[in-house]
Amino acid sequence: MIIILTSNATERNREDIVENLKARGFGIHLSQGVEKTIIGVIGALDEQKLEVAEQFEALPFVERCVPISQPYKLVGKSFKPEGTKINVRGVVIGGEQTVMMAGPCTVETEAQLMESALAVKKAGAHILRGGAYKPSTSPYSFHGHGVEALKMLAQARQETGMPVITEVMDARDLEVVCEYADILQIGTRNAQNYTLLREVGRCRTPVLLKRGMSSRIEEWLQAAEYIASNGNYDIMLCERGIRTFETYTRNTFDINAFPALKELSHLPVIADPSHGTGKASLVPAVTRAAFAAGADGAIVEVHPHPEKALKDGSQSLTPAAFEQLMQELRQIVPAVGRTL
Amino acid sequence: MIIILTSNATERNREDIVENLKARGFGIHLSQGVEKTIIGVIGALDEQKLEVAEQFEALPFVERCVPISQPYKLVGKSFKPEGTKINVRGVVIGGEQTVMMAGPCTVETEAQLMESALAVKKAGAHILRGGAYKPSTSPYSFHGHGVEALKMLAQARQETGMPVITEVMDARDLEVVCEYADILQIGTRNAQNYTLLREVGRCRTPVLLKRGMSSRIEEWLQAAEYIASNGNYDIMLCERGIRTFETYTRNTFDINAFPALKELSHLPVIADPSHGTGKASLVPAVTRAAFAAGADGAIVEVHPHPEKALKDGSQSLTPAAFEQLMQELRQIVPAVGRTL
Amino acid sequence: MIIILTSNATERNREDIVENLKARGFGIHLSQGVEKTIIGVIGALDEQKLEVAEQFEALPFVERCVPISQPYKLVGKSFKPEGTKINVRGVVIGGEQTVMMAGPCTVETEAQLMESALAVKKAGAHILRGGAYKPSTSPYSFHGHGVEALKMLAQARQETGMPVITEVMDARDLEVVCEYADILQIGTRNAQNYTLLREVGRCRTPVLLKRGMSSRIEEWLQAAEYIASNGNYDIMLCERGIRTFETYTRNTFDINAFPALKELSHLPVIADPSHGTGKASLVPAVTRAAFAAGADGAIVEVHPHPEKALKDGSQSLTPAAFEQLMQELRQIVPAVGRTL
Amino acid sequence: MIIILTSNATERNREDIVENLKARGFGIHLSQGVEKTIIGVIGALDEQKLEVAEQFEALPFVERCVPISQPYKLVGKSFKPEGTKINVRGVVIGGEQTVMMAGPCTVETEAQLMESALAVKKAGAHILRGGAYKPSTSPYSFHGHGVEALKMLAQARQETGMPVITEVMDARDLEVVCEYADILQIGTRNAQNYTLLREVGRCRTPVLLKRGMSSRIEEWLQAAEYIASNGNYDIMLCERGIRTFETYTRNTFDINAFPALKELSHLPVIADPSHGTGKASLVPAVTRAAFAAGADGAIVEVHPHPEKALKDGSQSLTPAAFEQLMQELRQIVPAVGRTL
Repeated sequence: MIIILTSNATERNREDIVENLKARGFGIHLSQGVEKTIIGVIGALDEQKLEVAEQFEALPFVERCVPISQPYKLVGKSFKPEGTKINVRGVVIGGEQTVMMAGPCTVETEAQLMESALAVKKAGAHILRGGAYKPSTSPYSFHGHGVEALKMLAQARQETGMPVITEVMDARDLEVVCEYADILQIGTRNAQNYTLLREVGRCRTPVLLKRGMSSRIEEWLQAAEYIASNGNYDIMLCERGIRTFETYTRNTFDINAFPALKELSHLPVIADPSHGTGKASLVPAVTRAAFAAGADGAIVEVHPHPEKALKDGSQSLTPAAFEQLMQELRQIVPAVGRTL
Repeated sequence: MIIILTSNATERNREDIVENLKARGFGIHLSQGVEKTIIGVIGALDEQKLEVAEQFEALPFVERCVPISQPYKLVGKSFKPEGTKINVRGVVIGGEQTVMMAGPCTVETEAQLMESALAVKKAGAHILRGGAYKPSTSPYSFHGHGVEALKMLAQARQETGMPVITEVMDARDLEVVCEYADILQIGTRNAQNYTLLREVGRCRTPVLLKRGMSSRIEEWLQAAEYIASNGNYDIMLCERGIRTFETYTRNTFDINAFPALKELSHLPVIADPSHGTGKASLVPAVTRAAFAAGADGAIVEVHPHPEKALKDGSQSLTPAAFEQLMQELRQIVPAVGRTL
Repeated sequence: MIIILTSNATERNREDIVENLKARGFGIHLSQGVEKTIIGVIGALDEQKLEVAEQFEALPFVERCVPISQPYKLVGKSFKPEGTKINVRGVVIGGEQTVMMAGPCTVETEAQLMESALAVKKAGAHILRGGAYKPSTSPYSFHGHGVEALKMLAQARQETGMPVITEVMDARDLEVVCEYADILQIGTRNAQNYTLLREVGRCRTPVLLKRGMSSRIEEWLQAAEYIASNGNYDIMLCERGIRTFETYTRNTFDINAFPALKELSHLPVIADPSHGTGKASLVPAVTRAAFAAGADGAIVEVHPHPEKALKDGSQSLTPAAFEQLMQELRQIVPAVGRTL
Repeated sequence: MIIILTSNATERNREDIVENLKARGFGIHLSQGVEKTIIGVIGALDEQKLEVAEQFEALPFVERCVPISQPYKLVGKSFKPEGTKINVRGVVIGGEQTVMMAGPCTVETEAQLMESALAVKKAGAHILRGGAYKPSTSPYSFHGHGVEALKMLAQARQETGMPVITEVMDARDLEVVCEYADILQIGTRNAQNYTLLREVGRCRTPVLLKRGMSSRIEEWLQAAEYIASNGNYDIMLCERGIRTFETYTRNTFDINAFPALKELSHLPVIADPSHGTGKASLVPAVTRAAFAAGADGAIVEVHPHPEKALKDGSQSLTPAAFEQLMQELRQIVPAVGRTL
């Protein structure tokens, strides 16, 4: 960490801060410029330095503290440069093969779920998605069928052979969700619900962590660090669009995040173009883009009758559109050295 | 709700949608323009119409659905035009008198808490703030002393007579927090944690609901509706800054929200200039601004030794700076017909 | 346009507004709901209706005006559904073949420009980019060699056969820039400089219009409409990233904009991944993504010695990296039915 | 400036960069950490260092360059700590007295202008605003009466004694605008139109520089530096709201900017609550807030008949509402040691 003093800091100020830092066991590297004094803080753990940064910025003669190291370790690239591969009932995520997760936003009925599951399976999807517990901006909206829906997912898994992914919103539901689900999904509204992140970190079920709609990449990786630091290393990062001033689309899908995360982390990166756009007509192009940018997979909403969907109908693909998309993706992935 | 069809919608499309709406019990008002057809949907509950909107936008010949009514009821202005007053152990929030909540970000030690409490009390604060459970972006940071801190808050209340406000992050902690706290605080990272909102709605302890850092005003009011619709009407809305592209300040304090919320809702509105700016030097001016704009109160971080604070030291006022601020505010509030 | 009255609008208010609208020659469609009155305004030109919207929203009993039609015509999809093709000295933009524009951010010396030009030509670029007039956030930065640089570009064109694109910032430079350039570039900081847009609309040189860093897609198309409505129809839209809260990248490249613009407009769409990311290491993945999403071409910064570049060195590719990118793109474009 | 090398930088890399910096005349301060090498660059002009930052970040073994000094000088606080006062025909801006500029968004007719001018004068305004040249998002909207309007403004000045402020959009209009106007306004869409900024810097008429709707405070000050570095020091900074995700208001008025600018710069700061909110009903509260936060003045749209305004009617105050606002402000300003 580097501490930059204001230009009116006195010699006394300088001595005080240096002494304070030494007392905390830090090494010190003082650099006296014409205008400003810069103090390099050396040799302690990063987490400690972050705390120090917050405290020292409170001093009136400190202009700024600049952290030098990244505020995450376990999920950082250098921790596992070869990349993480996650095996979910035989489907490997993070390897040469890219992975498609598809299904309805919400599990509504057995018939709807099975119709969706068979359709996406036929088109080539590897994993079945479906919401049992749903976050809704309005308290009066539909919130999912809960355990009933989990059971339907388990049955669909049995009939199709596809592992299932479903969202968990409440730490108190974790036990029952882990009983049925193969991958736990953490939604965007819970991306900084540290209570839930910590609990999920204590499970051994793989986790798909969606980006918070206003999370910077660094904060997103820190959220992943919460899970990893509690012992669960099987984490996928899922870009689902960020909130910006643009209103034509529901969110702005941050395509830059794919190569950026591949630089910064060893975790697999999954695209959610359904929430990333909010419009079914834009989903195919954006999914193709994500795979071309290096995504390890995608999670796409497919509904047999989007106009009857209880949630997010406007962003769901029909089975026919999904099949068409899978064909397009099979053209794209070889161009980046992958299979689908 | 108004449904606007695309210009290439056929007569058949039109008939289909009208029939579908009638079958759901909606009244229909058809308006055939030169270019486009517009369907007014009449007479049903809003919440139902919102659901319908999502579904109908999935139809290829529907261009847009425009909601006419606000997606919240209990927290809307017309539900209680005279405004809500919340009585917390004799301190009334939402009345003529404005209210100051102050204290350290985090409860660190008994000595630190008591020193802060006595200082803010002396300067004129009405309510004592202090964090027992702290959300931190990094898993390696300090997360609060939990129940120990709650007990210290209760003791500080006894010695100073000030009611206490503290954050709750986990529904499983609610019972114990309610035992000690006079006001429950929901933080920005949990502003769309619907699990927590619903549980807090089942308590009878007043709630201060911070705005999500990327919540639109409408979404914020819907979050409040979650609490109210579960039976807890004693809600304060707390503007704490939103996330924008500006990096000089930690957040952008949305001063527009004060008059906007006074138009839209009957709930008291509180300012959090400490998080809204992230810089102690900007806190006094922004607090004055909030009171001038109609805030019913403020919640301000004060720490006897900001440079030693375990969290957020750089945004904490010293006791001297806080006392100075209180004097300034006493000049401002009469200008808007209030007292402090 | 639809005008929604507040719930406390009186019958008198309603009559006043209807009369006023009729006097302006509008057709009226009144729809009296239980809670609110909705007035459909029919049959006039959009532009007029937009003006009316602004005025009527000033009335205290009008809640909202909802425009139904798009605020642009000449650049809208329905004006030319088959799409616009622009022929620049034999290079066709908007056809089956995708187009690569490449070269240094800024023309520095004849040697640097020629070295860049030959390198990008060899790798397969079609058009040479290079800045003669440069916008800089700081007044003390380098602002380009002006006419000298234009002459160097013309010479590079002669030696390589590649048409040239360069930015124009000042309406007073238009004449001289048109003398040398084959495509005029409007930069992001001038994306709403209507003076310049109008003048460029009076030229007959094709224009590449960058998106304003805070322009919504609709505003961007209105900026294009400024050019088209002055007679210049040869417009390319260039996505170069928008400003968001993310700080790891210089901008957030809005990949959604590609399929969105293909729905809304007939104009070719070009990607600028150099500014869209601000980091050379992210450029290849994001360029591949843009082509997979339907871009008609890209404009990429290439510098023989990025660390010596006078501007934007950190986002420039080396010639070797550019050649590698061209090879990757040749794998991608057939997957979307295009050539390169 | 500080240059941080990546952890895999070699000794050779280090030597290369140090040699390169020395050759450019910089002093060097090398700090070898356990993980990373940090190079302090000392003693050169900031502007040069900024250029260097861009170039060195292009090197593969450089992780980051951290500027230490502010990228502006003439408009920085330390250049004139006592603050700038601007005298406009006897009205002093930046002194103890706060200043109100008011009038219609657009000069429409002589009658409308005079009615507005007399009304705002009567209520206590000091300066008359009115648009002669208007930027409009749509090319089909009204763009102002030009020179005709300038003449009407001059006449209104003569009859009321109030100096006038009006927007200039085109460098070619500068001469004629300076002939009539007492203050030149640079609008938000031209806030980074460096051509115009430079030309305005060559005038001797005071300038009100609006913040770009996506400008960070630092960029805004750099825009002001463009004007100052060309010789015109009479600059006012005008906060008019920034673009964010919030859609209830037209912009988000950044109240933090007032104390922030008072820390960073010596220039007077003016509030534009009309554009900052976009809603007449929110203007009074936000104007009060700005004065409480330290604004040196405000510029407010007032129209005798807002519902007939040719532009921005929905954000214009009626004369009665304006008079009421002035009375409220007279209560607020003494609380911050000012007069009105």
